[in-house]
Amino acid sequence: MRENEFLSWIASRSRFDAAKVPVGPGDDMAVVAFGGERLLTAVDQALDGVHFDLANHGPRAAGRKAMARNLSDVAAMAALPVGAVASVALPKGMSQADAQEIYLGLRDVGDEFSCPLVGGDVSMWDQRLAISVTIFARPAGVTSGIDPVLRSGARAGNAIFVTGALGGAWRTGRHLTFQPRVREAIVLAMRYKLRAMIDVSDGLAMDLHRLCRASGVGADILAAAVPVHPDAVAGRNIAPLEAALGDGEDYELLFTVPRGQAKRLEGDDKIPLPVTRIGTITKNPDVVLIQPGGSRQPLPETGWEHKG
Amino acid sequence: MRENEFLSWIASRSRFDAAKVPVGPGDDMAVVAFGGERLLTAVDQALDGVHFDLANHGPRAAGRKAMARNLSDVAAMAALPVGAVASVALPKGMSQADAQEIYLGLRDVGDEFSCPLVGGDVSMWDQRLAISVTIFARPAGVTSGIDPVLRSGARAGNAIFVTGALGGAWRTGRHLTFQPRVREAIVLAMRYKLRAMIDVSDGLAMDLHRLCRASGVGADILAAAVPVHPDAVAGRNIAPLEAALGDGEDYELLFTVPRGQAKRLEGDDKIPLPVTRIGTITKNPDVVLIQPGGSRQPLPETGWEHKG
Repeated sequence: MRENEFLSWIASRSRFDAAKVPVGPGDDMAVVAFGGERLLTAVDQALDGVHFDLANHGPRAAGRKAMARNLSDVAAMAALPVGAVASVALPKGMSQADAQEIYLGLRDVGDEFSCPLVGGDVSMWDQRLAISVTIFARPAGVTSGIDPVLRSGARAGNAIFVTGALGGAWRTGRHLTFQPRVREAIVLAMRYKLRAMIDVSDGLAMDLHRLCRASGVGADILAAAVPVHPDAVAGRNIAPLEAALGDGEDYELLFTVPRGQAKRLEGDDKIPLPVTRIGTITKNPDVVLIQPGGSRQPLPETGWEHKG
Repeated sequence: MRENEFLSWIASRSRFDAAKVPVGPGDDMAVVAFGGERLLTAVDQALDGVHFDLANHGPRAAGRKAMARNLSDVAAMAALPVGAVASVALPKGMSQADAQEIYLGLRDVGDEFSCPLVGGDVSMWDQRLAISVTIFARPAGVTSGIDPVLRSGARAGNAIFVTGALGGAWRTGRHLTFQPRVREAIVLAMRYKLRAMIDVSDGLAMDLHRLCRASGVGADILAAAVPVHPDAVAGRNIAPLEAALGDGEDYELLFTVPRGQAKRLEGDDKIPLPVTRIGTITKNPDVVLIQPGGSRQPLPETGWEHKG
């Protein structure tokens, strides 16, 4: 089973009344008309052995990550969290104390972002721990006019930016402790016309491909501009760029703005974290990596593998 | 780990601004203020080996049940489904065709109840299939004035009713094919003052205890009145009443109405399914089973075990 194929198949099966469901599967969050407002919602799992390692990371970190992943989806829409529900499938024999730690981990980061945990479901089974969190949000701009930022709004000529620095998040544990960029996204959206946005969960290469595909565009990425995290190469033999493009689990924001706003954004000290311009959206749908010498090569969706 | 203890501990940790979260964990659905309306939400899992048996029941039935369980929660509030999201943790090696069947199972019953599947998350792991569905709903009475029916509204003297008939649902496969009582609940709520309601998922005895605990009341149940499903004793050696009280997985509705409405409800041919009066809410918090001869015995939360 290929996950991307399956998701495309689902998208092809999804037909909605656009007045009721303005955004269906395929973006960071779905958008549903509700009570004269737009309700945003997303679901994300955190599975033992896939998204965390319970034996090493412990139940509290697992719970925290499950909630933080969802808050990162809210950030990717420049939206405001409203609340969340969680289901947990607990391994039989897990202690009450460990189950409580999962709940407290969910609450730790939920409370920090004013995202109450309003409901849940608990089951026990003879398999490993599975946590699923569904989050609800509202557009940040009910008063300020900020619409949810979709993946599909990128246009040729847009400047491409990324927050923070990328690579090595799993190896150094940053994937458990990252701060969802909820507030930063809203500041960005208040000060700039964000055309498209996605959070970097599966690696810059893959998530950039998703954004481009959703927008029907391509991208020229400057290899030398990609911000590499100091964690990226710690203790392993990998090219820094390869780690930054392919590792994933960074939960930074990848977004585009009209080219005329790029200069101002690069020098804007009101933005509460580093943002780096890494390239330009192109009409041609190819995603291309440009080396410092000017040579161009396709950037594969699976990330860029350093050869030699 | 005891599930009920854990849920009580969570409830004790939950403090909400009642204007923002009128109903938190502990009812069939949470209620959150959203856009001038009330957003109802619930999450329920369906796990292979617990809620279905993938090898026997197949992926489509698993998907259907995951969605139907959630629709039953909507019924228990007499609310209207708005949409749902689902996460699935697929066993590695599952075929694309089987994954598609899960999705189609979710859609089968979702579509039937005008509940679009607006988003989801797919992961693969080396464990068994886990499906988690989160459902959203709105009060049925935006125009008709029907408020969500909580578990906590039962008062001494209320008549206790149950829809349909109980017992044997797992053994005969009815737990996979049941019809969530969404429409029936709304008809009931339009014609009667439903004081409290819950869906019967873990057995009449356990769910009655939950309703009574939430309302701070007890109940006198007439053993002879409990409607036993023809499936209940098929092919096994069990007292019919024991099966009806303890089996669970019926997804019928258990509810109370003011005693003055009981007679009319019993003879009401506008109600599109059988409803049976099984007892009376009491001020005394004990839940009591009354045998035809008049003898009274406590009805344990775990269900009633037929002795001899």
